[in-house]
Amino acid sequence: MKKISILGATGSIGTQTLDVIRKDKESFKLIGVSANSNVKKLIDIIDEFKPGYAVLNEKLAYIELKEYCKNKNLNIQVLCGIEGLNIIASLEEVDMVVTSVVGIAGLIPTLNAIRAGKSIALANKETMVSGGDIVKEEVKKYNANIIPVDSEHGAIFQCLRGNKKQDVNKLLITASGGPFRGKKRNELVDVNVEDALNHPKWKMGNKLTVDSSTLMNKGLEVIEAHFLFDIPYEKIQVVVHPESIVHSMVEYKDGSVIAQLGSTDMRLPIQYALNYPKRNEGVVDKLDFYKLGSLNFEKPDMDTFIPLKLAYEAGKCGGTMPAILNCANEAAVSLFLNKKIKFLDIMDILKDCMNKFEKKDKYTLDDILEVNKKVKGYVNYKYGN
Amino acid sequence: MKKISILGATGSIGTQTLDVIRKDKESFKLIGVSANSNVKKLIDIIDEFKPGYAVLNEKLAYIELKEYCKNKNLNIQVLCGIEGLNIIASLEEVDMVVTSVVGIAGLIPTLNAIRAGKSIALANKETMVSGGDIVKEEVKKYNANIIPVDSEHGAIFQCLRGNKKQDVNKLLITASGGPFRGKKRNELVDVNVEDALNHPKWKMGNKLTVDSSTLMNKGLEVIEAHFLFDIPYEKIQVVVHPESIVHSMVEYKDGSVIAQLGSTDMRLPIQYALNYPKRNEGVVDKLDFYKLGSLNFEKPDMDTFIPLKLAYEAGKCGGTMPAILNCANEAAVSLFLNKKIKFLDIMDILKDCMNKFEKKDKYTLDDILEVNKKVKGYVNYKYGN
Repeated sequence: MKKISILGATGSIGTQTLDVIRKDKESFKLIGVSANSNVKKLIDIIDEFKPGYAVLNEKLAYIELKEYCKNKNLNIQVLCGIEGLNIIASLEEVDMVVTSVVGIAGLIPTLNAIRAGKSIALANKETMVSGGDIVKEEVKKYNANIIPVDSEHGAIFQCLRGNKKQDVNKLLITASGGPFRGKKRNELVDVNVEDALNHPKWKMGNKLTVDSSTLMNKGLEVIEAHFLFDIPYEKIQVVVHPESIVHSMVEYKDGSVIAQLGSTDMRLPIQYALNYPKRNEGVVDKLDFYKLGSLNFEKPDMDTFIPLKLAYEAGKCGGTMPAILNCANEAAVSLFLNKKIKFLDIMDILKDCMNKFEKKDKYTLDDILEVNKKVKGYVNYKYGN
Repeated sequence: MKKISILGATGSIGTQTLDVIRKDKESFKLIGVSANSNVKKLIDIIDEFKPGYAVLNEKLAYIELKEYCKNKNLNIQVLCGIEGLNIIASLEEVDMVVTSVVGIAGLIPTLNAIRAGKSIALANKETMVSGGDIVKEEVKKYNANIIPVDSEHGAIFQCLRGNKKQDVNKLLITASGGPFRGKKRNELVDVNVEDALNHPKWKMGNKLTVDSSTLMNKGLEVIEAHFLFDIPYEKIQVVVHPESIVHSMVEYKDGSVIAQLGSTDMRLPIQYALNYPKRNEGVVDKLDFYKLGSLNFEKPDMDTFIPLKLAYEAGKCGGTMPAILNCANEAAVSLFLNKKIKFLDIMDILKDCMNKFEKKDKYTLDDILEVNKKVKGYVNYKYGN
C-alpha cells in the first residue's frame, strides 16, 4: 500500500487525485492533505479519507479547522502554512508526495520531499520552472524519483520508457491551442475572464486555464521538460493538436516517433504517476479509434501567443530568468482574474518584467524567493491599481 | 559489426535492407544472399557487397551464376535451392538472418536460423502464419530473438518496449485500407492487376500489394501478431488509417495508448530491426508535424474485404487452418497476377479452401508442407485453367 500526501488537495489536480485513490483504496492510503483556505472541502476530504495530517495555508482557516477537529474529537494533526506543508511532505511514513499546489508556493515543500527521499508526483510546473537548477541538483544528490503528473510530461515519460536518452532527437509537446486558437492579437483585445476560462478540452483550475489561453502554459511546460528530461531547448518542439488525444511524443534519431494517446482526462496521467511502474484499470474511459475521427497538427502562432516565445527565450537565457517570467505571469494572471488588467496586458507584463529584471546565473533558493517578492511586488504596484 | 544473411535479397524488402546496410557499412557485413531466379540483380549485389555465399532457388539461374563467378574468379560459394537457404541461414559466422523471401518458402530456413541461434529479422509473414505453433516452440526452445521487420509489428515491438505484457489490453494494427478503401463488393468486379498493384501509400512487392488490396495482408498480420506477441485474437483490433503515419499501437489496461509513427518508408522498420536495440540516424526522412495535416481512423469494412474476417476465423480456429488460408491465398494471388482469375475470385477461393480442407489441431512441419502441396494443388487444378 502506497502512503500519500497531497499538497493542494482541494484544487483540480488534488480532487482528481483523490478520485484515483477513491477507486483503488486497497493500493493507497492518504496520510497528509493540504489546502490554501477551503476548510469546507478539506473537511469533506478528512471525513472520507481520514488522513492523519491536515494543513491549511491561511491562518484563519487553520484555526477554524483545528476547532472543528477538536469538537469532533478527530484523531488528526492540524497544521498551518509552509511549515505544515514541509511536515506532510517529509513524514517518515509517507511514500509519495503529490505536489499539486499552484504556483511557486510548491517549490519549498517539493525540495523538502526530495530531501526526505519521497517519490514525487509532480503536478506543480512552477517548481521546475522557477527552481529547475536547484531541483535537479537535489534530485541528483538524493537520488530522488520524480514522476510528472502533467499530461504532456507524463506522456513523454511513457514514450521514453525502454529507450536510451542518447537516442532522443526531440520532444514533441502537444498543445490544444486553447480557446483562442487561430485568433490574431487584434481579436484578443476584448477577451474577458469568462472567455479565457472557457477551455475547449481540459478541465483545470483557473490559473492554469488562463495560462492555457495565452500559451504560457505550454511555455512553462517547455521549461519544465528541459529540466525534467535534461534536453536542450532546441530539441523541444511544440505542436498544436486541437483534439488533445495525443498527449505528447518523442522523436528518436532514427526518425521513429513514439506517442502516448488517451482520453482527455487528467486522471489518466495521475493514476499513471501514482501507480508507476504499474498501470491501473478502470480509472478512465478508453479511446475508441472507430469513433475518434480526425487528429490534426499545426504550428503554434508564437507571434500572437508571445508567452510561448518568451518562455523559450527565458529558458535559453537561463539562471533566474525563467523564475522572473513565471513570477511575472503568476502576478499578471492573478490581476487578470481579479479584473484589474486586460487579457493582452498579461503578455505585455511578461515582456516588461523580462526586460526590467536582471537575471542571476547561479542562484540559491533565497534568490528565487527574492525574485518572487520583487517581481510580484513590481507587477502589483505598477499594474494592480 | 553485425554479420548478416538476407534470404530474398532481390525483392522489395531485400533491396531496401541492402540500402540500409549501404548507408552504414561500418556496422554491417553481408555474408550470404539469396534470390529466386534474378541472376542479374544478384550479380550487382555480389559486385557491391562481396558476400561469401550466394544462393539461387532455380537450378538454371544457379548454373548461370556459378559460371559467372567461376569466370570472374570470385571468392564466393554459389549454392542452390532450399539446401542453400538453410546453409546461409545457419552459417557459424552469421549473427542475423533477414528472412524476406515471400510465401511459405520462408518457413524452413527460418526454423533453421532459429535452431542455429541466429537473431531473426522477420519480414516473411507466411512463416508465422503457417507454422506459428512450431516457430513459437522452437523460439522458446532455442531462446531465439525474433525482431519483426513489418512496419506494423515493428511498431508494436517498439510500443511494448519498457512495458509489461500483463499490462497490455490490446494491440491496434493500423491498415492503410489499400487502393479500394471505401468501395463495395459490386464495385470490385472489374478490378484488374494494374488497379490492385496501384497502392496509395506503400511500395511493396506484387504479392504483398495484392494482399494489401484485399486486406488479406492485414489478416496475415493479425495472425502473425497473435503468435509473435502471444496475444489472443480478441485483443487484436485492426484500425484503418489511410495516411499510414501511425504504424500501429498498443493499448494498455489503464487506457493509455502508445503509438509508433514515422514516414511511410520500409527502411524505417528495417533499420530498427537491424540495429536493435540501437537506433540509427540518417536512413529515412523525419516527420514534420507542421506539414502533416490530418490523421484519420476508421473501422475496416470486413463485409467487403472478407479476407480479413476469414483470417480472424482461421486464427481462432487454430491448428493448420491459418496455413490452409495462407496457402490458398498464395495460390489465388499467383493466379490473379497471371490473369487466370478475377479479383473477387481470390476472396471466394479462400472461403472455398477453408470449407473444403479439414484442419489438424496438432501439427508438424511435414503437415504444413502437406497442406501447402494439397491446397495449392487444389486451387491450381480447380481455378487455374
